[in-house]
Amino acid sequence: MELSQAIPILSAAPAALYALLHGLPEAWTRCNEGENTWSAFEIVGHLIHAERTNWIPRARILLLSGEARPFEPFDRWGHARESQGKSMEQLLEDFARARAESLADLRALHLQPEHFARRGRHPALGIVTLSELLAAWVVHDLTHLHQISRVMAYQYREAVGPWSVYLGVLHCAGHGAPA
Amino acid sequence: MELSQAIPILSAAPAALYALLHGLPEAWTRCNEGENTWSAFEIVGHLIHAERTNWIPRARILLLSGEARPFEPFDRWGHARESQGKSMEQLLEDFARARAESLADLRALHLQPEHFARRGRHPALGIVTLSELLAAWVVHDLTHLHQISRVMAYQYREAVGPWSVYLGVLHCAGHGAPA
Repeated sequence: MELSQAIPILSAAPAALYALLHGLPEAWTRCNEGENTWSAFEIVGHLIHAERTNWIPRARILLLSGEARPFEPFDRWGHARESQGKSMEQLLEDFARARAESLADLRALHLQPEHFARRGRHPALGIVTLSELLAAWVVHDLTHLHQISRVMAYQYREAVGPWSVYLGVLHCAGHGAPA
Repeated sequence: MELSQAIPILSAAPAALYALLHGLPEAWTRCNEGENTWSAFEIVGHLIHAERTNWIPRARILLLSGEARPFEPFDRWGHARESQGKSMEQLLEDFARARAESLADLRALHLQPEHFARRGRHPALGIVTLSELLAAWVVHDLTHLHQISRVMAYQYREAVGPWSVYLGVLHCAGHGAPA
């Protein structure tokens, strides 16, 4: 993990989601893969919630308290109430704003090479480093872009007929995180 | 498959790829998942090649000749020579232009509801309908967005440390099309 490699992806993610999702019919953005799965709308809500409660807040705990103080547990359903009544456009704008604030906060930490090996305590995973936390932030964006492509493709799983065998996204089981 | 649902995704794809990939360090766009796998650069090259030789050309063959004339086989490595020496920015612009032309061609076909069940012959898959071809075009975009997220995430598979268990994209095997 190098900050100069991580920041360009973190910076690009809101615009990529905006370009993909803004103005799409709700048939694409509100559909999911069945019970207890998320739509693109819920995924963007989750990204906003993670932005506010997960990445930078955890980096701060790690830098301030090291292994002594575990991170707050992350609520995987924490976005549900916050997203209620909002439009997809609003969520996309909220995510862009929340990410811009996080990146400003990240810059304000003035991280130096020696900080990246600093250790903290994840409530479930145990000891983790700042470098791992920042890499996980990047891959979390990519995991959800991967998931959004899959959720939308799922709606056409029958419509593609015999082409299904060539379209890998239709055979992705989701590799879901443990509940 | 409804054209009013399919067209918004087909229209959004070039901008989504541009927002994600333009200006990213080559460490992200030229990396792959190992021998005989594609980088984001190669995937965008493949999307351009498919745009020029696959979707609209096949729709035309289907509408003109039905099952009598099989589609031309698609060359999965056909992009290699065309992409050589180009930059990622050039490919992203080429894809946007090629897609805009395809969508103009699609509109010029003036498809009516009765056209969607028309049948053609895929050189490997056999009988397919126009509706299936158009749905496959949409899911092809989503398959490659899914793949690009995965290829980039792969570069951080070690860097995320214990977070790997929560990051589904790192456990995606690719579900590759048959060679």
